[in-house]
Amino acid sequence: MNRDRLIELLGEVKSGATSIEKATEDLAQLPFVSVDSANIDTHRELRTGMPEVVFGQGKTVDEIVQITQKIVEAHGNALITRLSQEAAAKLVEAYPNHRYLERSKIIWINPNPESEGFDIDSEDYVAVVSAGTSDIPVADEAALTVQACNKSVKKVYDCGIAGIHRLLDKQEIIKKARVKIVVAGMEGALPSVVAGMFGGPVIGVPTSVGYGVSAAGIPAALSMLASCAPGVAVVNIDNGFGAGVIASQVIKS
Amino acid sequence: MNRDRLIELLGEVKSGATSIEKATEDLAQLPFVSVDSANIDTHRELRTGMPEVVFGQGKTVDEIVQITQKIVEAHGNALITRLSQEAAAKLVEAYPNHRYLERSKIIWINPNPESEGFDIDSEDYVAVVSAGTSDIPVADEAALTVQACNKSVKKVYDCGIAGIHRLLDKQEIIKKARVKIVVAGMEGALPSVVAGMFGGPVIGVPTSVGYGVSAAGIPAALSMLASCAPGVAVVNIDNGFGAGVIASQVIKS
Amino acid sequence: MNRDRLIELLGEVKSGATSIEKATEDLAQLPFVSVDSANIDTHRELRTGMPEVVFGQGKTVDEIVQITQKIVEAHGNALITRLSQEAAAKLVEAYPNHRYLERSKIIWINPNPESEGFDIDSEDYVAVVSAGTSDIPVADEAALTVQACNKSVKKVYDCGIAGIHRLLDKQEIIKKARVKIVVAGMEGALPSVVAGMFGGPVIGVPTSVGYGVSAAGIPAALSMLASCAPGVAVVNIDNGFGAGVIASQVIKS
Amino acid sequence: MNRDRLIELLGEVKSGATSIEKATEDLAQLPFVSVDSANIDTHRELRTGMPEVVFGQGKTVDEIVQITQKIVEAHGNALITRLSQEAAAKLVEAYPNHRYLERSKIIWINPNPESEGFDIDSEDYVAVVSAGTSDIPVADEAALTVQACNKSVKKVYDCGIAGIHRLLDKQEIIKKARVKIVVAGMEGALPSVVAGMFGGPVIGVPTSVGYGVSAAGIPAALSMLASCAPGVAVVNIDNGFGAGVIASQVIKS
Amino acid sequence: MNRDRLIELLGEVKSGATSIEKATEDLAQLPFVSVDSANIDTHRELRTGMPEVVFGQGKTVDEIVQITQKIVEAHGNALITRLSQEAAAKLVEAYPNHRYLERSKIIWINPNPESEGFDIDSEDYVAVVSAGTSDIPVADEAALTVQACNKSVKKVYDCGIAGIHRLLDKQEIIKKARVKIVVAGMEGALPSVVAGMFGGPVIGVPTSVGYGVSAAGIPAALSMLASCAPGVAVVNIDNGFGAGVIASQVIKS
Amino acid sequence: MNRDRLIELLGEVKSGATSIEKATEDLAQLPFVSVDSANIDTHRELRTGMPEVVFGQGKTVDEIVQITQKIVEAHGNALITRLSQEAAAKLVEAYPNHRYLERSKIIWINPNPESEGFDIDSEDYVAVVSAGTSDIPVADEAALTVQACNKSVKKVYDCGIAGIHRLLDKQEIIKKARVKIVVAGMEGALPSVVAGMFGGPVIGVPTSVGYGVSAAGIPAALSMLASCAPGVAVVNIDNGFGAGVIASQVIKS
Amino acid sequence: MNRDRLIELLGEVKSGATSIEKATEDLAQLPFVSVDSANIDTHRELRTGMPEVVFGQGKTVDEIVQITQKIVEAHGNALITRLSQEAAAKLVEAYPNHRYLERSKIIWINPNPESEGFDIDSEDYVAVVSAGTSDIPVADEAALTVQACNKSVKKVYDCGIAGIHRLLDKQEIIKKARVKIVVAGMEGALPSVVAGMFGGPVIGVPTSVGYGVSAAGIPAALSMLASCAPGVAVVNIDNGFGAGVIASQVIKS
Amino acid sequence: MNRDRLIELLGEVKSGATSIEKATEDLAQLPFVSVDSANIDTHRELRTGMPEVVFGQGKTVDEIVQITQKIVEAHGNALITRLSQEAAAKLVEAYPNHRYLERSKIIWINPNPESEGFDIDSEDYVAVVSAGTSDIPVADEAALTVQACNKSVKKVYDCGIAGIHRLLDKQEIIKKARVKIVVAGMEGALPSVVAGMFGGPVIGVPTSVGYGVSAAGIPAALSMLASCAPGVAVVNIDNGFGAGVIASQVIKS
Repeated sequence: MNRDRLIELLGEVKSGATSIEKATEDLAQLPFVSVDSANIDTHRELRTGMPEVVFGQGKTVDEIVQITQKIVEAHGNALITRLSQEAAAKLVEAYPNHRYLERSKIIWINPNPESEGFDIDSEDYVAVVSAGTSDIPVADEAALTVQACNKSVKKVYDCGIAGIHRLLDKQEIIKKARVKIVVAGMEGALPSVVAGMFGGPVIGVPTSVGYGVSAAGIPAALSMLASCAPGVAVVNIDNGFGAGVIASQVIKS
Repeated sequence: MNRDRLIELLGEVKSGATSIEKATEDLAQLPFVSVDSANIDTHRELRTGMPEVVFGQGKTVDEIVQITQKIVEAHGNALITRLSQEAAAKLVEAYPNHRYLERSKIIWINPNPESEGFDIDSEDYVAVVSAGTSDIPVADEAALTVQACNKSVKKVYDCGIAGIHRLLDKQEIIKKARVKIVVAGMEGALPSVVAGMFGGPVIGVPTSVGYGVSAAGIPAALSMLASCAPGVAVVNIDNGFGAGVIASQVIKS
Repeated sequence: MNRDRLIELLGEVKSGATSIEKATEDLAQLPFVSVDSANIDTHRELRTGMPEVVFGQGKTVDEIVQITQKIVEAHGNALITRLSQEAAAKLVEAYPNHRYLERSKIIWINPNPESEGFDIDSEDYVAVVSAGTSDIPVADEAALTVQACNKSVKKVYDCGIAGIHRLLDKQEIIKKARVKIVVAGMEGALPSVVAGMFGGPVIGVPTSVGYGVSAAGIPAALSMLASCAPGVAVVNIDNGFGAGVIASQVIKS
Repeated sequence: MNRDRLIELLGEVKSGATSIEKATEDLAQLPFVSVDSANIDTHRELRTGMPEVVFGQGKTVDEIVQITQKIVEAHGNALITRLSQEAAAKLVEAYPNHRYLERSKIIWINPNPESEGFDIDSEDYVAVVSAGTSDIPVADEAALTVQACNKSVKKVYDCGIAGIHRLLDKQEIIKKARVKIVVAGMEGALPSVVAGMFGGPVIGVPTSVGYGVSAAGIPAALSMLASCAPGVAVVNIDNGFGAGVIASQVIKS
Repeated sequence: MNRDRLIELLGEVKSGATSIEKATEDLAQLPFVSVDSANIDTHRELRTGMPEVVFGQGKTVDEIVQITQKIVEAHGNALITRLSQEAAAKLVEAYPNHRYLERSKIIWINPNPESEGFDIDSEDYVAVVSAGTSDIPVADEAALTVQACNKSVKKVYDCGIAGIHRLLDKQEIIKKARVKIVVAGMEGALPSVVAGMFGGPVIGVPTSVGYGVSAAGIPAALSMLASCAPGVAVVNIDNGFGAGVIASQVIKS
Repeated sequence: MNRDRLIELLGEVKSGATSIEKATEDLAQLPFVSVDSANIDTHRELRTGMPEVVFGQGKTVDEIVQITQKIVEAHGNALITRLSQEAAAKLVEAYPNHRYLERSKIIWINPNPESEGFDIDSEDYVAVVSAGTSDIPVADEAALTVQACNKSVKKVYDCGIAGIHRLLDKQEIIKKARVKIVVAGMEGALPSVVAGMFGGPVIGVPTSVGYGVSAAGIPAALSMLASCAPGVAVVNIDNGFGAGVIASQVIKS
Repeated sequence: MNRDRLIELLGEVKSGATSIEKATEDLAQLPFVSVDSANIDTHRELRTGMPEVVFGQGKTVDEIVQITQKIVEAHGNALITRLSQEAAAKLVEAYPNHRYLERSKIIWINPNPESEGFDIDSEDYVAVVSAGTSDIPVADEAALTVQACNKSVKKVYDCGIAGIHRLLDKQEIIKKARVKIVVAGMEGALPSVVAGMFGGPVIGVPTSVGYGVSAAGIPAALSMLASCAPGVAVVNIDNGFGAGVIASQVIKS
Repeated sequence: MNRDRLIELLGEVKSGATSIEKATEDLAQLPFVSVDSANIDTHRELRTGMPEVVFGQGKTVDEIVQITQKIVEAHGNALITRLSQEAAAKLVEAYPNHRYLERSKIIWINPNPESEGFDIDSEDYVAVVSAGTSDIPVADEAALTVQACNKSVKKVYDCGIAGIHRLLDKQEIIKKARVKIVVAGMEGALPSVVAGMFGGPVIGVPTSVGYGVSAAGIPAALSMLASCAPGVAVVNIDNGFGAGVIASQVIKS
């Protein structure tokens, strides 16, 4: 029930077209937060401009295909994450207009044509900084998500702290970014270094790259939470998508 | 060495007032990244406007007093966190112009006079939402930090998910905030609920309130990292200060 | 040995048909707690009405087939959980009258004909609430278990806290349930939200859906144990069966 | 806004005493879920009959005293848990009519006079079973909570599995209980044993009694979650209060 | 009910002195495992010869004094572990005939006069081997427990693996022992070394001596469980008492 | 160098056949503990009578075959644990006289002919008690190891605490055993129950049977370490072999 | 920019060939740490003499081949670790001059011809000591890395603490080594034993050999960190490469 | 028994002053590894030059005083770590010639007069780098230990990665050090940064400075183990002493 229907109903009450009893019933029976829940959704869309998202893990190929179909019909585009190769094959065939990153397990169906390249310029952009070659799939997931949210992104890859001068070579891009997504596995120190050098906000993304104590990404996650450099906040291990969303939200529409 | 001194030095070289040998020595001996490191600091100050910060934990009372004195002399103001009552007493006496929150263990010396109250209006403000009475010290630490960064803050306290209607009562304040700091202990679900209802960016602050499995705040931290609601990033357990800094950085100066 | 046989035996002693020595032997040799242990079993059956259950994990296909055969011969029906596809294929072939949920890895052989649908009405029913599509296999395991215990069940799926209005849309079904099973992975906050809104008893079932810190379901389990909403108790991760049993026991026969 | 006020408002609309614009505003501005949130509270009270509860941990003595005062004024009674001795002393003095368990850190102000003793008879009662003397404070917290929820409780203490015959001596009381709360530290096996012998529902309460690996109660909590006996669900370590609430909810009003 | 009473009862049934109804009642009402549970206790005493034991942790001084009194009256002696200094003072005063080890927090009231010294000879003795000076309290708890179980014990202290030659100096005592208790903190490697050199059975007792990763004794416990030397089994961290009991049980009475 | 060679050498010194310098060199150069290390090995064999053991995990098929060959040549028999099916096939073919348990991943080559069956009688035997069908492979590994150590074993399987009466049915076998190996997964409570009822020594073997929190066997291991029943010691998760060795060592040769 | 260019530039300023503005720009624009970052690399090469290294895990076969090609072109040789069999096959084919250890997953392309065998003599060598056959792949990775760093290495394998005399047999080699790498899984005690007997520096390498609690190598890692023997430092689980590098750095070039 | 006594004994055998039987007895009865164990100790002393060390934690004041007295008598000097203030007061009084660091809980009795200051020059020195003021006590413990081992040390304090330019200011001292000890809490990234910039060997010392996830130093320890920069090895949390010993051993005597 939206405001228009509410005004109409009150008009009917006033005119006697609807009895008080009936109106009371309508108003009491109406879904708990109907107006507001709709508002919430609308607000979210307006605010982030991001497409509807499907979390692919744990769903069958059929479920993914069906859900995607409904979303594309309703919204025109869709972003599917944690996608199996099998499901991806189906979607790639069904929707020729897409951007699919196999190792990042993410597909963007009917991408915004304005965001074709990674380097669309805007004063307010997200810098995605990553530590090693093995972190690239997660970094790319973050970067594509930022684009899907209609924000600009610049990528600064392969800047691990074991070779910190490479980070410094790219200082201009990092320094000027409105917000930095910093992706790192193993000891996960890069977000602290970036925040210490260039300030925040930095969104740290721990990755599960590594072996031994770092096999599952826990040291990187703990390390980022424990960061001594103010301006760092952290998302789940390997959650490039989540980092992309919050970074996009930092850039005001 | 800043740009002005560099130009002056080169002028002296040109005029012969300084020999090439001496200038080479000066430039080679100058701290590794002197210009740039200064820039970094300057940039950080300009961007966040926050005062210099002292991490009080693990320092003696004497160390805290001395460091604070130097900072106040240099910057005019200072923010000291994780402060023992003993050290606080010394600072409170030495600096009559302060804002001190005993349970939050934080003091702001020579606070910005414009930020006297918590509710200075600005279109872009930080909403600090907390779950229970016991989370208030951490929430207040976050709020004071935001103010010390010269940003506006509005507090929405005591909105735990066990009584979710209280959260809804304050929906206007939360919805309109540029960024939300959400403080919660125990199961730590509030940031997910807030992000799901009102969108992000949400900075989750797990607290160590609780007992049993939640005694040290680990479930809350894990819960926030694992959040199914996009738009949530997390800082260390009880790190109200860190949340305040990154939230302030989200609001562009 | 039941009471009838005991009376009969004592009668034989009295009449001399059985010697004191023989009766002593019978009574001393009888398994330690024969009467009582039998009682326990009988009691359990009467109370829960649930069929005998086989835990399929870690058993060979042959072992499962043989154990099932014995149980069906003795009890007429059986419930097998954690079933491999290979073992399921054997059982499906051998017992045409069954209800088999492949993704839930559970089969009910010779199901109660009265419980054909999921929505048999009863004033006292169990509501099974789940957060995401990926949680459905565990939720379905719980629901089928409830039915196998001869209780009614209503399913309210896909109500994650990131879209809490969907939960509210179904408030009538949830509110009126005698007991709620709430299935959730990732941050596992849904049981707290449900208990906070609609009261308990709520049986929380953490699931291992997710990745990174939530890969094994630990954050969800901790989160539910740490719940700030009174009225929540928790079973093992992915243990839909266990939740179904205890929820059924809450509904008095 | 309750139903009466809604009818009144619609009446005013009909009569013209209130304009449609004003009524629309009222209905749109009214707290999000005002009616329903009130309903929730009412429902919860009706269903459980439990007094309002204050979680004492992390609150100052003054905060506890003030909150308690408000609740007692509004509801006539109150239950305060995790109470420091200092705060307890204040409450004991202020409210002479109370039941206070020092080692359980719980106080019930203005207790229901009908529940004076622990053994008020009712066909549907909660059995509180505990393993060792050291578990008694948690068991007593559970038992008092059950009484505060207007349910009957019977206590069966000191029945650890190292002397399982003691458990068997009390089998009648346990077997006939509508629901069992089983409190155990160290290896936490008692809930499984009770559920295996007497059936469920069993609410397991792990305690932090012990040292070494069991110092914080983790083994007991894991053990209960991992229970091989169907019919066991678990609450947080040392959470006698939570167990008392859910057990009371199992007994239908 | 023992076999004699059973024969007598059947005789009464046969003679008509007891009715069948009455006998049925007696046999059905008799405590579940009455005979056997009594047997268990008797057997345990005969087998281990150990005195009744009180676990002092988590009990009040009064509780400890009262329980001790009852046990001493019934059994003549008692062993109390995890004893506070305050409770110990009371017991030391009340029972002049005792052996009390303050740092081991254990008291043996009315000790067996034959076990005055630690070195009573017997072919089958327990060797208690400890790694460092800081492990002595736990080692002494184990040794006293062995004596309280009427077994011989020899102590070989301060033989850490950092100075393995000290261990070798005492090889005769260790080699000839029927069973070895090996107490070690930090890396907990001593049990593996002892079992590798001298064979088992070795009962490993991890201690919480240390700091950093070994602060709570977890590395030592894991290390002993993971031992590559066959013949090692492990008890809880700091559980000298438990090691003493099982070692005593290894030595046949 | 043994005692005979030492006497001979000293004779040569006395006679001048060997110079003092040469003898000093010989004595100083002799392998560190040559005599004693040989003694250790001899002692170990005599004491346990167990065959040489190969740990199969992490070795290639070729390595296993070669090591086995050497051992069988030297000792006549061998026990290989943690054996892949591929390596087992090779050994089964090469050594027709064997006892191979596929699911236990253990093979005994040239087994002692006297230990053909599992139930060779001896007054001092090991009882192997297991909780569920899924624990049998580990229990069988323990039982075979006991036999390979020339000790008698009796198996009491499928006695989980969820059906404790089954345990009681077999009380005679358990009670009379010289030592009990108790194998259990999930909550791992069975060793405590057995020790509480029948006394120790009990060697607990946690298994990795289960899922969710018990997936890796940690709760069972913690539970056994935390046991409140004296007389329980624990080996590594799934380490049936280790339990078999230490249990065999408990039975004096 | 090096010192020569700086002098030149200042000369140009003095002579007027370069304006002060232009020189200021040059000096301010020069890459952050250009000189020094280059120096760092050069220094590292000079100091360790090790080839460039590629971390193979998480990279595609194509990425590995391309990166290797660039490095070999630039440096003449390369070391690739954590290499899949598929990638190894490609490299083995492309670079006939290599040393490849399949189970260690490491390849050295164009190895130093002087380091053909493992036992090139040098007074200052690294001893690589390993506990069991299963630890050999990690030990070999360490040994090859040492050679690739142009240092000598001696291997002392299969010296577990369960048979400590084997360790003693090789004491000369271990004692005289400049630094010891000690590789051990399970309880990980060997580094402590080696440091206690022969002194340090000892680099401990925990391995993931084992099962149950030691499945992932955590007990070994904790055990080594907790070592009571001074002179032990630890690298990541299974990190033979890292141990090889730091051990090589200990031996001064 | 040392080489001199051995030669003497063989001389007596040759001369007949000692019988072969007596000599055999002497040689066979001599403590297992007497010669070698003595050698080990001697070797250790020669190699490291460090005084005997007492681990003060878990020892009574009396024990510490007595052990110290014996060591000072035998060796002339002593190093006591983890010292309570009470024990320190006793030692400070008894031994006026000492160097005592209260916050580092370490005392060096009769320090080497040549190492009075921290900055004795030597080409091969240890650089002790620390991240924050709160890490200084651990860093000082490491530095004093290095001096007690007769090696030179240079301190570079307060160089956290949040202000990485401070680290660069001191690059000369760090770069030229033979080995670096790097002390850091919180995210523990400094050792990786130092090794990446200046090469190894780096001994990382995690500290327990911090709160929340970093309260016990675990993230720092994991982070250092997981370091992506080759050349880092790690000691226990807060183990400045251990780092000092191994760093000293790296510098060849």
